[in-house]
Amino acid sequence: MPSIEEQNLTEFLAEVKLKMENITFSKQKDIQKINDFIFSSDGKYVRSKIIFLYGQSVGIEYHKLLELASTTELIHLSTLVHDDIIDEAPLRRGKPSVFKFSGIKKALLYGDYLYTKTFSCLNSLENKDIATVLINCAEKLIEGEFNQISAMTYQAPSLENYIKIIKAKTAVLFSGALKSIGIHANFKDEDLALLYKLGHEFGYAFQLNDDLIDFFNESVTGKAKYKDLSEGKFTYPLIITFKKSTNQEEEMIYKLLEKKEYSQIVELIEKYNGFNATRIERDKSINNCIETTKNFIKLDSLDYVEQFLRDTLKA
Amino acid sequence: MPSIEEQNLTEFLAEVKLKMENITFSKQKDIQKINDFIFSSDGKYVRSKIIFLYGQSVGIEYHKLLELASTTELIHLSTLVHDDIIDEAPLRRGKPSVFKFSGIKKALLYGDYLYTKTFSCLNSLENKDIATVLINCAEKLIEGEFNQISAMTYQAPSLENYIKIIKAKTAVLFSGALKSIGIHANFKDEDLALLYKLGHEFGYAFQLNDDLIDFFNESVTGKAKYKDLSEGKFTYPLIITFKKSTNQEEEMIYKLLEKKEYSQIVELIEKYNGFNATRIERDKSINNCIETTKNFIKLDSLDYVEQFLRDTLKA
Repeated sequence: MPSIEEQNLTEFLAEVKLKMENITFSKQKDIQKINDFIFSSDGKYVRSKIIFLYGQSVGIEYHKLLELASTTELIHLSTLVHDDIIDEAPLRRGKPSVFKFSGIKKALLYGDYLYTKTFSCLNSLENKDIATVLINCAEKLIEGEFNQISAMTYQAPSLENYIKIIKAKTAVLFSGALKSIGIHANFKDEDLALLYKLGHEFGYAFQLNDDLIDFFNESVTGKAKYKDLSEGKFTYPLIITFKKSTNQEEEMIYKLLEKKEYSQIVELIEKYNGFNATRIERDKSINNCIETTKNFIKLDSLDYVEQFLRDTLKA
Repeated sequence: MPSIEEQNLTEFLAEVKLKMENITFSKQKDIQKINDFIFSSDGKYVRSKIIFLYGQSVGIEYHKLLELASTTELIHLSTLVHDDIIDEAPLRRGKPSVFKFSGIKKALLYGDYLYTKTFSCLNSLENKDIATVLINCAEKLIEGEFNQISAMTYQAPSLENYIKIIKAKTAVLFSGALKSIGIHANFKDEDLALLYKLGHEFGYAFQLNDDLIDFFNESVTGKAKYKDLSEGKFTYPLIITFKKSTNQEEEMIYKLLEKKEYSQIVELIEKYNGFNATRIERDKSINNCIETTKNFIKLDSLDYVEQFLRDTLKA
């Protein structure tokens, strides 16, 4: 049987989804066709989970959390729709990506439609500071995507650059969501900064975990196996490996990526302990999250949050 | 020598451009490269001209007009960047379109970047009602583009549908800009509605004129000759012609469009007086604009505005 916390969370996520469906509803039939396609399956709503857990524990009203979560998910969804076009990703968690479903032109417009709906929500928020935080997040997400397409495809970035890209691309929206909770709670500036940093740490752990599950079976993780590799992306385990490789091995990695032959790449990563190094880095980051969380979360719900973080951030 | 009105307008447009450059400036070098490309030439800024003329005549402060004009132009620019990808339009007023300059992926992201910058401007407007009006415009523009790609390519729409598309695609931002001026001026609801209608009429005349210049020489109009036709678009002169054509001629039009042979299409349009019918419709609309304008513009500047409308809306 689910615990009360789990049950509350499940109900919250269902309400977030319903709110997103209401916000995005359109009489234009092509738009609504894509809406129906998207909302026919459930998302992961990781950002909403974080918002609910942290928001509830610092006492933010339910309707504010619902508003924040649906807006944050809409920003995330807008960027996914366009990112999948850019990455030429045919699948998104086991289903065709929007552009595979509707064609590139309609997917491009649909992404724009979601953006306007998102900003319409932001405009109707009572709190202008939160709108500002989230608009800045959207801007940083786009800059991050620019950096990624400029730097990463079929070319190994430095570890430093990769971490910068993760922070801009994945972590920023977690940070924005957590900072927004702090604004709702009237936290002072140093606590807002700490929440923003917590979001970064969370996003970092989340991305490292996502990098790892690229090498696992789809049926377990929901992410198509070798999705990143097939898009020519160097992720953490491979960058670590590349750094340690001989010149000959480096060349081999490029060739295997182009030929889309991944088993030898996996062998090389194992040889240089790339998976283990990624796990260690991820776990360090999870521990940092838990430590920082202790500043905000009441002791009686800390165990649950800790468990949640470990469950969510570990494949 | 330019008149004082013309000189003031020229200065205003230069300031709008400068403000847009400042708003869109980015340290991300790919983004800034596209900014530099776009702002290396001057736009037409028709929306800003309207804002300046009507806004000044009803006494709105200069800085508010500048803010409104740059935001409106940014919305327009965002949609152009994505529309050119969708229409596969290689040229935009004699220059390569953004996606031809930067590639589709960066153009897609750049459009998103402009959207976020636009909404960031809207969020910092003092007046939430104006932000709401302009966000609704952006939404309608996107719905209009959806209707267009669904209905029009290589397929004759009914005149009724075409007018609906024009209203959604072109007229809506003129309406939004004019209504925003009315909000700044604290106009009562019925005057706001009249301004919104004026914008529609203006956009309608503007689009009909744009439809006509598709058949003229590029060096005169700045628009590539047969741009619309080459994108498989049926515009007003051709729709009028199509309606009057025999079944045999209808088939011929489809074939000629596909083969990109336009001289015979022009002959048919002339045979059925399609150009003339478009001019008459446009001029009727311009006269409507002038009549409605008399409700708002002080008599002493009415002559200038009237001349401006005729100059802007007649190729």
